[in-house]
Amino acid sequence: MLRSTMTVLAKSSAELSSESVRSLYDKLCVRMKEIGHVHGISGILQWDQEVMMPAKAAESRAEQLSVLAGLSHELDTSPILGSILQELEDRQKAQDLSSELNAYELANIRLSRKFYKEETVYPLELVKAAAALQSKASHAWVEARKESNYAKFAPYLQDQIDLLRKKVRYCMEAGLCEETRKINEKARISLGLKDGEECYKGYYQALLDKYEPGFKEERLQVLFGDLKTNLVPLIAKITEKNFQHDNSAIKGDFDVQKQTEYSHRLSKDIGFDTDCGRLDVSTHPFTGGAHPTDVRMTTRYTINDLQEGITGTIHETGHSLYEQGRSKEYRDLPVSQALSLGIHESQSLLWERMVGLGKPFWTHALPLLKETFPTVERIQNVTLEQFYNAFNRVEPGFIRIEADEVTYPLHVVLRYEIEKALVEGDITVAEVPALWNAKMKEYLGKDVKEDRLGCLQDTHWAFGLIGYFPTYTLGSIYAVQIYSAAKEAIPNLEDHLAKGEFHVLKEWLNENIHKQGSLRESGDELITALTGKPLDASLYVKYLTDKYTKIYDL
Amino acid sequence: MLRSTMTVLAKSSAELSSESVRSLYDKLCVRMKEIGHVHGISGILQWDQEVMMPAKAAESRAEQLSVLAGLSHELDTSPILGSILQELEDRQKAQDLSSELNAYELANIRLSRKFYKEETVYPLELVKAAAALQSKASHAWVEARKESNYAKFAPYLQDQIDLLRKKVRYCMEAGLCEETRKINEKARISLGLKDGEECYKGYYQALLDKYEPGFKEERLQVLFGDLKTNLVPLIAKITEKNFQHDNSAIKGDFDVQKQTEYSHRLSKDIGFDTDCGRLDVSTHPFTGGAHPTDVRMTTRYTINDLQEGITGTIHETGHSLYEQGRSKEYRDLPVSQALSLGIHESQSLLWERMVGLGKPFWTHALPLLKETFPTVERIQNVTLEQFYNAFNRVEPGFIRIEADEVTYPLHVVLRYEIEKALVEGDITVAEVPALWNAKMKEYLGKDVKEDRLGCLQDTHWAFGLIGYFPTYTLGSIYAVQIYSAAKEAIPNLEDHLAKGEFHVLKEWLNENIHKQGSLRESGDELITALTGKPLDASLYVKYLTDKYTKIYDL
Repeated sequence: MLRSTMTVLAKSSAELSSESVRSLYDKLCVRMKEIGHVHGISGILQWDQEVMMPAKAAESRAEQLSVLAGLSHELDTSPILGSILQELEDRQKAQDLSSELNAYELANIRLSRKFYKEETVYPLELVKAAAALQSKASHAWVEARKESNYAKFAPYLQDQIDLLRKKVRYCMEAGLCEETRKINEKARISLGLKDGEECYKGYYQALLDKYEPGFKEERLQVLFGDLKTNLVPLIAKITEKNFQHDNSAIKGDFDVQKQTEYSHRLSKDIGFDTDCGRLDVSTHPFTGGAHPTDVRMTTRYTINDLQEGITGTIHETGHSLYEQGRSKEYRDLPVSQALSLGIHESQSLLWERMVGLGKPFWTHALPLLKETFPTVERIQNVTLEQFYNAFNRVEPGFIRIEADEVTYPLHVVLRYEIEKALVEGDITVAEVPALWNAKMKEYLGKDVKEDRLGCLQDTHWAFGLIGYFPTYTLGSIYAVQIYSAAKEAIPNLEDHLAKGEFHVLKEWLNENIHKQGSLRESGDELITALTGKPLDASLYVKYLTDKYTKIYDL
Repeated sequence: MLRSTMTVLAKSSAELSSESVRSLYDKLCVRMKEIGHVHGISGILQWDQEVMMPAKAAESRAEQLSVLAGLSHELDTSPILGSILQELEDRQKAQDLSSELNAYELANIRLSRKFYKEETVYPLELVKAAAALQSKASHAWVEARKESNYAKFAPYLQDQIDLLRKKVRYCMEAGLCEETRKINEKARISLGLKDGEECYKGYYQALLDKYEPGFKEERLQVLFGDLKTNLVPLIAKITEKNFQHDNSAIKGDFDVQKQTEYSHRLSKDIGFDTDCGRLDVSTHPFTGGAHPTDVRMTTRYTINDLQEGITGTIHETGHSLYEQGRSKEYRDLPVSQALSLGIHESQSLLWERMVGLGKPFWTHALPLLKETFPTVERIQNVTLEQFYNAFNRVEPGFIRIEADEVTYPLHVVLRYEIEKALVEGDITVAEVPALWNAKMKEYLGKDVKEDRLGCLQDTHWAFGLIGYFPTYTLGSIYAVQIYSAAKEAIPNLEDHLAKGEFHVLKEWLNENIHKQGSLRESGDELITALTGKPLDASLYVKYLTDKYTKIYDL
């Protein structure tokens, strides 16, 4: 439709007050769908940029995205949308709307209101400053990492911290982070601070909420504490064993065309619908796109390493199944969207680790691999047991994105502890490298010699993404708990997996996770509804301990 | 930038009147670039839709494009843009701006004004009706063609004619088509019509102007008349000869992967810059994309026919060179855009026909083809002469898009004559099939037995594209004249081509056509500036007559 047809919506609040709840809700949906479509366009442009775009188009693409961001911002913050939401809020205050709207519809209102508040909470100057800083800080980070020179990046990190604190203050003033306000107030009292004296306690909670909505940081502390307590000794035990499994079968020369065919085959077997998505190649694998009917995922292949392409494909397929499995009925509306980054990651990790690192999966997939590489002797000769051990090697390293499932959580815990301390004012930017290196030694037994391999390795902080790291490990804890619920719900699940009957698991996830979208208010709430208890690290610790005690004969 | 930063432009006309011409011009450029970027986004989405998009994403893509069209419409018709243009027009009336702005800048103002007037001339209801009719008429056309049932399509064609007449009236009222107004006034007087009596004389001129700006239809009548007079007997002579060249060398089984490699090689040899564009495959070859740095062209390969992929690639490469060769200095502004559809087609046809059907080109390209298909005996054995004759077969047929360069113009002349008569009220919609078939018999000696192969073959009328067909043949006339100018300007041009030194021609076209963009006001003006005389069919007729007299030994 033409935008100008939307002018029928340009009514004053007074006029809206004569409309029925259903009619207000429908008007809200029209606008939220429009917003969703613009975000979809942006998704396609970003995919194109990573996968298809010719090299010299970068500048014009940046300009296109900038214009689109501006248009998008106008839609996101339109006063008409605000009026509709305000009118609905007034109605909700006056009466219970649940007789007129169902739970999904009520969730759409709740999520739209939150979205609108978040979009309108910052003054334009701050939004522009954030975009400018992101660009400068990320350039500085690239240089700093190249030279392993933390001092070059430090001032930009400080600017990001300052900016994020400003953002949290705006959110608090707008009533957008009640949890942070409470923690902060309590801290001010206990510290005996006066008005005007600065205090950043509770700020991390507000940042975490952007990526893992509704998740209490105090719960995170407990979960991550449990992980540290249990995984540090487990890793030490493995390391002390001073034994490593042979992985020569999956290393060496593997034709990329054949790897590609195999990956496409696996993703389709698992349930990726190629009528509603594509699998391509990019430097950094990701899942994006525009819509449940248009999911674009990527992987990458290394000629020397079979595991990289396979793991990347299965991981992104997990993300894609979530996207393709979103509610058809509430398609294009906020309630159909993924609940949180952690839940999204749980879907990729469930398939990558619970399934794709397991023996049942390889009972099905190894014969196919042998079919794919008929002339590669080391693949023809490898046994399931050998292959399984090769795929599940544990080896503490410096780099998070190269880490195995046992050491990975500690990379995240380390980052969480540092970024929280930074934001809340417990350490300075200058103290980061030393603290990083000390923690690496303590958790993984590794001596960091260069910041390039330490606190300069990730791009997140340069982009102002603080509060994001924990979602990776929340994802893996969710994954274990969800997989365990699936095993209880689906008789003989792993026999099905061994026969390549992945649809039984996929359909269960469709029903219990994907279609649920953002109906629940937090990952914890979703997990409680599914399993009867909130998120809990013990299952995860048990899973890792049992599995690797066997693999490394501890 | 964020859209809201644009509010600095939201000044009243009174405020604009205190600004300098330069400052007004700069403000105009900011807005026109923004408009250009949104059109670029739409170009990428459309390319993606044809080349990459998964099948079931069609609905969501349509919704995205519709939202984007709405946003684009708001930018295109923004009152602020109108105020800036009005202020610049007032200044131009008061003084000659050529001391302050150069010819390209003045052209930007002229083109922006025209663009804005065209975007704002129709009431919203009409724009919506046109979009709805396009959708319905194109669906009806698909059905009608499938069943070869003209009656199913006829009412929609009538609706399109009525709608186009309405559009022309709006344009006349807005002073957008003075030429049509003059012709119409003259006709009304000579026919003795009273106020209120309908008369559509001159309406075709207004429609032609959308695709071939500034081109006088009376010139078209002369050119097309000349073509008919000369080509009908030439074709008859060829047909009567009752002889055909052997083309078995280029038919049969050709590995598509090898065809692809060869096409990529040719397009790069010719000068396509793969850092600023891509070559992919789609059902219907096209050149699109977003920007001179991001040109997306496609071709298609048929396993049984070598010529289709090669010709498609060379044709689209010609379009792409135009796009990639656009002015860097005035990038993203209207003056850098292609002058007309006819000039664009001249660039594709110059490479496809003047170059790609010629012996010099194949002196270079045939050895490469033999390298590409080392085991295909009929390619290894074919001589340059045989290959040239096979590529240049003439054979009158029913279908325009399959026609060779000798018969193609008559397909266009036929359509022009019919669509002009329809729009200007000289024939009724019901009379189209009989007239079509009569003309096919007269021009090409073919008996149309089914409308599917006759007046239902093209999609243009269903989409309301009337006035478009002539640009194909204007393109081929331009192409001959431009190529002839290039031969005069570049010593030993064809020796260069025979050595694969295509850059000499490409660079000459860059300078004399591509970079000129829309600086001139019509194709005729561009050709006159280049060759000293306006467009003229005689060179084209001579080119075809000489070439095919030899090939068919007439």
